[in-house]
Amino acid sequence: MFDVRQTSVDEHVPAGGLHHPDPAEIDLPSLLHSLSDPVRLEIVRSLAVADEGCLACKEVPLPVSKATASHHFKVLRLAGVIRQHDEGTRRISELRRDDLEQRFPGLLESVLRAAQTNELAPSGS
Amino acid sequence: MFDVRQTSVDEHVPAGGLHHPDPAEIDLPSLLHSLSDPVRLEIVRSLAVADEGCLACKEVPLPVSKATASHHFKVLRLAGVIRQHDEGTRRISELRRDDLEQRFPGLLESVLRAAQTNELAPSGS
Repeated sequence: MFDVRQTSVDEHVPAGGLHHPDPAEIDLPSLLHSLSDPVRLEIVRSLAVADEGCLACKEVPLPVSKATASHHFKVLRLAGVIRQHDEGTRRISELRRDDLEQRFPGLLESVLRAAQTNELAPSGS
Repeated sequence: MFDVRQTSVDEHVPAGGLHHPDPAEIDLPSLLHSLSDPVRLEIVRSLAVADEGCLACKEVPLPVSKATASHHFKVLRLAGVIRQHDEGTRRISELRRDDLEQRFPGLLESVLRAAQTNELAPSGS
């Protein structure tokens, strides 16, 4: 009924496929590392408030080159934070909210709240 | 009433003093980076369950050299995760639970819960 090999026959996925770790494989140090960069936090925040929960890479305004942005998206995907698929020439990303909630309850939401606080008051008392 | 320079006259502190960021200066990317290492997560877990909330560095069993362990404690201190002071030849560390809760509510606790989950089931199913 459920074929774990389905990604290998998905016509939108390039040869080799886009790797996404299973929820049980999501590793806490790797996850925290993926979230420890301001640009990647901004990607996660943008996806969290996106209208349909997903965005094309180019729809997230970032102060870095296209190649650097692609790298950051990839780090997030390999850490299990986002899921990506291709639609024509656009690579669409969405947060793996349910998978992360299942693996580490409350963690993503507390990071999203913290990201908002960090933005509002990075210094001062 | 509150003298921010008080650390400079603390007799236990070496010349220059041990730097601890103010709560408002704790930066989310730096905080997450400090927690994105298995050894540093183990230090944080050990401090979280320590009898009096604090431990000497040498009381935390770690699979690394003394110099490497000192480096990891320092990364945690500079990120605002732990507070350290010297007692004779022992450097004592404690989690800055209240400061972190004030700065980023719920974040440290969700990381501690996640660290326990990560330990229990890093792979499988």
